Amino acid sequence: MEGHRNLKIKQQLLEHEKISYASDHIDLPEGGIDCGEGCNPYGFPPECAEVFRNFDPARMGPYPHSQALYDAIIRYWKRQCNIERENIVLADGSINALYIINNMFDTHNAVVLGISPQFTDYYMHAEMIGIKYARYQLKKEHNYKFDTYEFMAMHNIAGDYAQASMPAREYNFIYIDNPNNPTGQVIDLKDIERIVKGARKKNITVIVDEAYGDFMPKRNSAVRLCEKYPNLVVVRTMSKGFGLAGLRVGYIIACKELAHCMNKMINPYMVSELAREVSAEALKHDEFIRGCKSDFRGMKKKIRRALGCTDKFPAGNRGRLHLAETLDSNSLMLLYHDDPSINLKEEFFKRGVLVVDGYDFRGLDSSAARIRLPKAEDFPVLLKAIRQINKL
Amino acid sequence: MEGHRNLKIKQQLLEHEKISYASDHIDLPEGGIDCGEGCNPYGFPPECAEVFRNFDPARMGPYPHSQALYDAIIRYWKRQCNIERENIVLADGSINALYIINNMFDTHNAVVLGISPQFTDYYMHAEMIGIKYARYQLKKEHNYKFDTYEFMAMHNIAGDYAQASMPAREYNFIYIDNPNNPTGQVIDLKDIERIVKGARKKNITVIVDEAYGDFMPKRNSAVRLCEKYPNLVVVRTMSKGFGLAGLRVGYIIACKELAHCMNKMINPYMVSELAREVSAEALKHDEFIRGCKSDFRGMKKKIRRALGCTDKFPAGNRGRLHLAETLDSNSLMLLYHDDPSINLKEEFFKRGVLVVDGYDFRGLDSSAARIRLPKAEDFPVLLKAIRQINKL
Repeated sequence: MEGHRNLKIKQQLLEHEKISYASDHIDLPEGGIDCGEGCNPYGFPPECAEVFRNFDPARMGPYPHSQALYDAIIRYWKRQCNIERENIVLADGSINALYIINNMFDTHNAVVLGISPQFTDYYMHAEMIGIKYARYQLKKEHNYKFDTYEFMAMHNIAGDYAQASMPAREYNFIYIDNPNNPTGQVIDLKDIERIVKGARKKNITVIVDEAYGDFMPKRNSAVRLCEKYPNLVVVRTMSKGFGLAGLRVGYIIACKELAHCMNKMINPYMVSELAREVSAEALKHDEFIRGCKSDFRGMKKKIRRALGCTDKFPAGNRGRLHLAETLDSNSLMLLYHDDPSINLKEEFFKRGVLVVDGYDFRGLDSSAARIRLPKAEDFPVLLKAIRQINKL
Repeated sequence: MEGHRNLKIKQQLLEHEKISYASDHIDLPEGGIDCGEGCNPYGFPPECAEVFRNFDPARMGPYPHSQALYDAIIRYWKRQCNIERENIVLADGSINALYIINNMFDTHNAVVLGISPQFTDYYMHAEMIGIKYARYQLKKEHNYKFDTYEFMAMHNIAGDYAQASMPAREYNFIYIDNPNNPTGQVIDLKDIERIVKGARKKNITVIVDEAYGDFMPKRNSAVRLCEKYPNLVVVRTMSKGFGLAGLRVGYIIACKELAHCMNKMINPYMVSELAREVSAEALKHDEFIRGCKSDFRGMKKKIRRALGCTDKFPAGNRGRLHLAETLDSNSLMLLYHDDPSINLKEEFFKRGVLVVDGYDFRGLDSSAARIRLPKAEDFPVLLKAIRQINKL
């Protein structure tokens, strides 16, 4: 049917195609391992299965009213900061949290400043609904490491030290994923605070997407700043560290006033009754994530050794494959190859490892790939593939 | 914190307050019954509990990939029309489906034409994100009955018979809930088709929200028209008839081209893995809803008798309480009182029945109330309250 072309809907929905690595089905290489999907290879805290088994199925009937998740979030952050119920917005996965957040801004004129590469589905949504997406490009020659001072200076985000090398531009908001997806690197909370402080002077809202935040120290979370800055919105999810991607649970922390604004756009039935109960249990089990982090650190250490990463050559100089700036306890990392014509995803696939094509991130190409670490028992397959590809 | 007021976000989010009957907690009168929340008082098909019990909790880990719900939807509509996978958009509850749909339109300039009263949370979202909401008012003197010809003529929606009594206005889209919430009345599919056909000539999209659609005959669903009209979007939910509100499952049916446009704004992980499996099972059990409908018909018959509803006096003339136009097999109905100063919700509350205040619907006031029928065993409490209030 062609009649839809004349409908009075947003033009970009008709004209632009979406690029995303999120897919309905996983095409695993035969007998191979999945290092593509961003879930936790170790699953979730085992106590969650118990909560599932004890859940009364009759509770699937009424609308979700459980307050357990709100309480658990407050408890979870207690030693870091005082979150109250009014600071929390629940969402069906952090992706839905981002959809809500984008809708705070005028989709006709708003400009968001992002980082490249970063979480693809975020800016795809922004652009599809009409927000302009500007970006600060991480540089290969700096091993894709984020530079706070350069970022703030280039984009004229006011700080006492801002020396704009580019004309000031009116951003409505800034979107930073911290840890960054795909590299897995972490921006220090002090730098996040510098950005939020500078942005505040220009009335710019800062969105910090901490989807992979459970893999960095809790004390580095921007949640700790929400009491202090009215222009800060932090997004968290139960899908990554806590491994409950199948349940669809995310949440937003912001000052009460901004949280109230966001709650006006949704109803109180976000997140299913079961998901609220199971997630509340998961948040009691930090020790589960500590175990995962320790394993990931061990794996990245071995990868660093295989690639010859040193203080002098952080990207590695033992072959043609390189590891972008990353936090070792994080499940994510970005590898890139010296040969610009190589298709890294295909090379890994041939060797039994499914990864995400760098092409799916604006600012990268197919000579890079995002890898989510597998569990320890599957790691030898990945390490062997890395060693081989390093020599290509 | 006051700094948020200067942020470059949508003004209406700062200035307007949301009015909604959707609430986090249910304040039931002591020992009373809930006729407020729009879920199914009979719960869900019992086979769903079995699916829950057999569900492997490990599936909470990976992102949702189950195709069961897509297949079940296709099967569910098979005898009515040929839905294919590409016609379907899943959403975490039909409210999230509506959020996606509203985002198809330019939130800066778009105007939606709705009906008053209708589902509050729909137009609240539209207005909060910046869409203008125009409305066709159902008239008390016509017992709130929808009049297709008047609707089309008044709003100059092209049809061969359109004689606009008002200046033409450029609507981007039309939002109709069918059955209507709060009255529970149903617009005949032939009339829906007239509207869709007329709207098409003006490139207006028509959204038909069939949240309560399981309580009307399947053959009256606008889903049957989706193959024929490129400007039609139908919304369904598992929360009402199938009674799975706690799971958060809704879906959209539209022509493939429009469904594709909507899928560009979301990712493929809408609806949790468990909810996909349980909903797929529910859709096999039409007989469950047949049982509910039969009970609701019996209850409304008794209410009609108590109020003195006849062909000549459809709203009832045995007292001061009246029943708005409604379909008897639907769980919803609207009652209104002759005394404009009465607070109907309070009167019901005193008598042990929680209902929704008419005030929560634009176009009504507190002398009206929405009632969702309880299960048969609780019905005497409701009927007694109705009889008493009828005499006030």
